[in-house]
Amino acid sequence: MADWGEFGFIEALRRRLPPASGALRIGVGDDASWWRPESGNGILTTTDMLVAGIHFDLSYTSAADLGYKSLAVNLSDLAAMGGRPACAYLSLALPAQLQKVWLDEYIAAFLQLAEAHNVQLAGGDTVAASELVISITLNGLVSEGNPVLRSGAEIGDDIYVSGSIGDSFLGLQLLQERIAGSVLDSSKIAFLQARHLRPSPRVGLGCQLAASGRVSAMLDISDGMVADLGHLLAASGGLGAELDRAKIPLSQAALKLVTAGHLDCRDLLTGGEDYELLFTANPDARAEIAEIAISAEVAVTRIGRITDEKTILMLVNGVTEELSGRRGYDHFHD
Amino acid sequence: MADWGEFGFIEALRRRLPPASGALRIGVGDDASWWRPESGNGILTTTDMLVAGIHFDLSYTSAADLGYKSLAVNLSDLAAMGGRPACAYLSLALPAQLQKVWLDEYIAAFLQLAEAHNVQLAGGDTVAASELVISITLNGLVSEGNPVLRSGAEIGDDIYVSGSIGDSFLGLQLLQERIAGSVLDSSKIAFLQARHLRPSPRVGLGCQLAASGRVSAMLDISDGMVADLGHLLAASGGLGAELDRAKIPLSQAALKLVTAGHLDCRDLLTGGEDYELLFTANPDARAEIAEIAISAEVAVTRIGRITDEKTILMLVNGVTEELSGRRGYDHFHD
Repeated sequence: MADWGEFGFIEALRRRLPPASGALRIGVGDDASWWRPESGNGILTTTDMLVAGIHFDLSYTSAADLGYKSLAVNLSDLAAMGGRPACAYLSLALPAQLQKVWLDEYIAAFLQLAEAHNVQLAGGDTVAASELVISITLNGLVSEGNPVLRSGAEIGDDIYVSGSIGDSFLGLQLLQERIAGSVLDSSKIAFLQARHLRPSPRVGLGCQLAASGRVSAMLDISDGMVADLGHLLAASGGLGAELDRAKIPLSQAALKLVTAGHLDCRDLLTGGEDYELLFTANPDARAEIAEIAISAEVAVTRIGRITDEKTILMLVNGVTEELSGRRGYDHFHD
Repeated sequence: MADWGEFGFIEALRRRLPPASGALRIGVGDDASWWRPESGNGILTTTDMLVAGIHFDLSYTSAADLGYKSLAVNLSDLAAMGGRPACAYLSLALPAQLQKVWLDEYIAAFLQLAEAHNVQLAGGDTVAASELVISITLNGLVSEGNPVLRSGAEIGDDIYVSGSIGDSFLGLQLLQERIAGSVLDSSKIAFLQARHLRPSPRVGLGCQLAASGRVSAMLDISDGMVADLGHLLAASGGLGAELDRAKIPLSQAALKLVTAGHLDCRDLLTGGEDYELLFTANPDARAEIAEIAISAEVAVTRIGRITDEKTILMLVNGVTEELSGRRGYDHFHD
């Protein structure tokens, strides 16, 4: 299977599948599927599988953190389509040595986040296994109008991101003790670690952006900002982008680490697991998007624009760099 | 986790969950959830997780058999609610040593069965893991009217099963070489093995039964006929049943093995994995149910009736035996 990476398998499968048809409007390939079987706006569905030791490390991820995050990443996928989450299905493969208290804490945190987003746990399965595997499926509704796909960006559109970029990557480096946090006070360390362990799915923002009808393309950042921008550009027909590094939103904690020379700012843009929304819109929608950001109480920053150059360029201290080929961006030309 | 068996965890979880409310009509506890978010009859969803070495044995289960069966068991769950399947989500945890050809054959068989039931593969995930884990979620529509729950049986109702009982158990015994098939010709051996490896989900029958509005309770037989009848009786408020062993439908191959003294007929009733439908209906619906069976081209047999005795009795050669407490029936009094 070495030659069938995660991406390769999905791509191979997509090529084999007939195109989505009938009531299934969007199948494999976006953040969620869109199924419109009856009257109404239809059902969005996303699914995700997590394996211990690959997607999470139990040495620094508590049961409660995992219960939260395993649902949060699915909420983020629905948010990226503008979906309002509704019903979750949780299947767990549980190793025999797992303690009941671990499972209790996992479920409690899962249900707490579910309740905060009006999600009901509607089904699931538990099985014995030699390693911990978590599989979650989430059904939601298209809040209003059509969902926002990753394929609608147009030349000249503005590019936006929510929140701040790179915190999750830094939090992970701190948890893994790969970088020293000595320049940070303990609250900033806790902030970065929480951004990795407890990302905030931008559900309200995603729903309001979709409902506005002004967003041309959207996805959530899981593979890294540059890689996911590449996916959006590829899905939109092979477009390009120009970014301004000075505009990319960094948290105070991230800025402090970059300023102290602990790492290159560009690592933050490829780190992944931000679970922020990356989206595009026509420049005439700027005022409306600013209003939505205020209403959703999430920072939204314009970081660049869509071009027809088939590459991602970034303006850094007055010099334009080409980002294509950086880690996480390999699939852009697939 | 030894004290938290599969059933115990689901039960514990169900007790912790708020009751299904709002658009979620039926949550954890039936064959599928029922979600009715908009106008129309609503969405049925079922999910299932399978682990190599526990739910299937790769030494006698081919990739194609597994591709077929892993979808079939979910189709069977939807059929048991009267649902018409539509969109499947397939997540696979794949060990590194798995060959690409194995995965190709798995997917091909999965998609072939999907196409036969007008199911589209609408999403999924693939991850690396040390053991093979398959997680499938299936969304479908309530075909007409309301879905059939397992909780609606009433005293005096007839009890029916589709197809024949025990073939899958016998097929498994043959595959595991636990019984000798010497009294059977090769086609009967192949029949029984196929009944285990390639069960026929009774989708058409389930939809027609639900649409008739004449069925009071229904589920599919996965744990064994006696155990699943116990679940239906418990869900229906603690009722009982009287069965007539002479009426329980056995295939010619099964009858031959029983007649040859290779096993006790009662083992067939507790073996499990039949994926036949078990349902109840008022006696005045007999003619209509017979017509539906003909139309769906599936044998349907009346095997007993619902009582208020809180136990399962079976008439065997003129003598009444009590089945409560037999293997697979332990949860009846939960």
